[in-house]
Order: sequence, then structure tokens, then C-alpha cells
Amino acid sequence: MTRRIMLTVAYDGTDYCGWQRQTNGVSIEEVLQKAVDKVNGRSTPIIGASRTDAGVHALGNAAVFDTELGIDADVFAKALNTCLPPDIRIRASREVPGDFHPRYGECLKTYEYYVQNTSDVIPTLRRTNWYVSYQLDIGAMREGAAILTGKHDFKSFCCPRTGVKTTVREVTAFDIAKDQDALTFHVEGTGFLMHMVRIMVGTLIRVGRGFYGPDHVTEILEARDRTMAGATAPPHGLFLIGLDYDL
Amino acid sequence: MTRRIMLTVAYDGTDYCGWQRQTNGVSIEEVLQKAVDKVNGRSTPIIGASRTDAGVHALGNAAVFDTELGIDADVFAKALNTCLPPDIRIRASREVPGDFHPRYGECLKTYEYYVQNTSDVIPTLRRTNWYVSYQLDIGAMREGAAILTGKHDFKSFCCPRTGVKTTVREVTAFDIAKDQDALTFHVEGTGFLMHMVRIMVGTLIRVGRGFYGPDHVTEILEARDRTMAGATAPPHGLFLIGLDYDL
Repeated sequence: MTRRIMLTVAYDGTDYCGWQRQTNGVSIEEVLQKAVDKVNGRSTPIIGASRTDAGVHALGNAAVFDTELGIDADVFAKALNTCLPPDIRIRASREVPGDFHPRYGECLKTYEYYVQNTSDVIPTLRRTNWYVSYQLDIGAMREGAAILTGKHDFKSFCCPRTGVKTTVREVTAFDIAKDQDALTFHVEGTGFLMHMVRIMVGTLIRVGRGFYGPDHVTEILEARDRTMAGATAPPHGLFLIGLDYDL
Repeated sequence: MTRRIMLTVAYDGTDYCGWQRQTNGVSIEEVLQKAVDKVNGRSTPIIGASRTDAGVHALGNAAVFDTELGIDADVFAKALNTCLPPDIRIRASREVPGDFHPRYGECLKTYEYYVQNTSDVIPTLRRTNWYVSYQLDIGAMREGAAILTGKHDFKSFCCPRTGVKTTVREVTAFDIAKDQDALTFHVEGTGFLMHMVRIMVGTLIRVGRGFYGPDHVTEILEARDRTMAGATAPPHGLFLIGLDYDL
């Protein structure tokens, strides 16, 4: 009997060219694919949920594959971890309906972006935090984040290379927590465009630096023009925290 | 006029063979030495405070060198950072008395050791945390840490390869904080033997696993025998937090 297995995948994205196969480097997908082929005993297509960019990390991306093996679903995680490098870990594996597709299923996605607002760089934090040394007005940034929350056309916050039918997305929560020098941008939504979280963070950093007031974020949204928004924040501060499927 | 400059040095020790020059890899010392030579405009001996092991990290190790340059002492940090790789950063530079020696000066050293007490490995934490999946009795470990606090002969907690006059040292504080799966061993003292913090952590993990009760730590101390103590905890969980000199 064929069963569909969903994996919860965590990785340190530093040394990868992103989730998706590329010609310019090693992808998470191809390394995971090889491990699944080995455990499943045959060439096994895997379907990933979120194609994270080069350098982006994940605590809970997802991927599915089909198997005829009769072992318990949760055993796949342990078996796969013995075939994977230490910077990719399977945190859980479970059976899902045979027609479940991780990109088309309804889901709430959570991202976090980590900024260290200091010039005093701690080398062990450099792979997972964006160091921003400019003085930032956190109150203004929170006002900007509130404007981005809700259902909007996020065309200004989307990499123009992307080919999507609609650029309307819904951000259901956007908070900025501050703990000494550490800023955590916590973003939840039902779907995100290419580079959307990183462009939102880059834009809010401009608000924080006083390039423009938080109200200008409304104008950026209305312009539907990528050149109006701030620079794309670097990938290494971004974590895909988790995908909450209605299963 | 010759002045002595003290540097506060932070590093991600993952890719280094330790502070001290070795034949088997690149050391923090040699990379820093090259940067100091370049900034100081001549071959400049540097004296490090603490010879951390391969893979150990630092937020505040120290090193001194002498200079005839007339620039402000705090400018050396910025100048050196332009010549150093991102995994070594100079957090501060200041003038110290010309006869100050960072290994012979009175100082309070602070170390922290980070353990994740779970089998659910987060790849981005793997370089700076020791993952221990066994169930641990934190109360018993804290009792063991209390026994290690104070002035003792730590011969059982010292790498036998070392050649030191006395193995008596004073641990002035030893706390274990728990926050969900994260355990932080916070250790302060006026001096530490080779591998001492890592052997103390390895021994307390044995106490936590129930191999022996916390009272057995007294017997280990009294035995003055390295084979009585637990295994040396791996280097990647250890951070030299700082050195507090009476300057």
C-alpha cells in the first residue's frame, strides 16, 4: 500500500544555494532527495513546501514523498537523519492523506527575521543575524509593521523576477520584539511572495533609520512598484519557523 | 613612545585549531598576528590571555601588543577588523600599563557552556551547543556544581598532558540555568586548568544521568585522578565570556 509521508525539515542554510536545485551550488532539496532515495530503496520524487532562498534557514519547512515501506511513519525521521549531514535534520515524520500537496494545502506560515542592532559583532551570531549598526526608531518600525498587516497587494514587496497570478497576500501578524540589541521580526501569513519577508524587513529598517515615516509604507503598498520599497534584507537573518497545515 | 594595547577578542572557534599556533590547522593567534603586523606596520609579537582549545568560542578573550603609532587606542579595533575574517572580531582596544601581561595579571574569568537537552536537533544551534538527549536531573547537577565551587585541588578535572606547578584553583561561581531545553553552565573563577570547564560539565552530565550521586563529586575531587571524572564535554559548547582584569 502506498502512503504519503510528510517530513518536518530544519536546516542551517549557510552552505546551500537554497531549497531548490540550482546549477550554482548544492541545494537542500537534492541532499534530502538522495537520503529519501536511500531510505525508501528506490528513486523517490519529493515535493517541498517552501522554496527558501540561498542562505535562509528553517526550523520547520516541509516535504512529502510516497512510500510502499511498511515501517511506522515516525521512523522515517530517524532513518533519514542517519543519511543527512548535520546541517539538515528531519525533526518529525508522519503520514498525511495521499492527495495532500504541501504547496497547495491551506497553511499558516511563520517566519522570523533576526537583527542585531549594534556595531559590536559577535562572530557566533553572524550566520543567523543581520547586523545593523544604525540607530533605529523601533516605535516607527512597529507602526510600519502594523500597516503591512492584513490583506494587501504586496507587488511592491515582491521580487520582479517572479511569475505569479496575483500579488495579493494576507499577513495575519507582524510583531517586532526587542531584547537589548536583538530585534525579532515575527511574521505570520497564509502565503508569501518571493523575497516578501526580506523586502518588508528592509523597508522597515529604512523607516527605523528615518528615511521616511511609517505612513509612507501605505504609499509604497499603493504604488505596486518594487523600486519604491527598501532593499531586500540579507538572507542569513531569515528563518522559516513553521508551517501549520489544517490536517 | 611605546604603548601597550589590549584587545578584546571574540571568535567563532569552529574553523580554527584553537588560540595557539599548531601544525595541524589555522589558529586564532596566527590570523590575529598577521592583522596586527599589518596595522602596526612591523612584525609585532602578541601575547594572548587564554589559549582556548580547538572549536571553543570566545566573546571576550584578550591579547596585548606594543606599538609606537600615535593613533587613539580605540582606533586599533576598527583598523584590525578591516583585516580580519568575519569569524574573528576585535570588540574593543585600549591602552594598558607597559608591564601588563594578560596571563600573569590578576583576573576573574567567566565561561559559559551551552547544552541543549533534547534529541530534536536545530541545525543552526549545532555549532554552539552540545546536544544531550538523555533525561537529566538538574537538581542533582546543581548539587554537584555547588561541591565544585570554592578552592580545591582540581587535578581530577585537568587534562593529564598539562605541565603546571599546582592544580589548586578557585571556582567562585558555578550556576546551571534552565530555559526549556537549554541549559547554561555559568562558571567563574580566578584560574582554570586545561580542559577543566569541559571535564566539570562532562562530570555533571554523568551526575544528571544518574551514573552516580552528586556526593560522588567530592570523592572525584579527593582522588586527584583524571580517570575518576567524567568525559571531557565537546569543545563547541564552550564560550570564554570574558576576562575581568583589575586594571
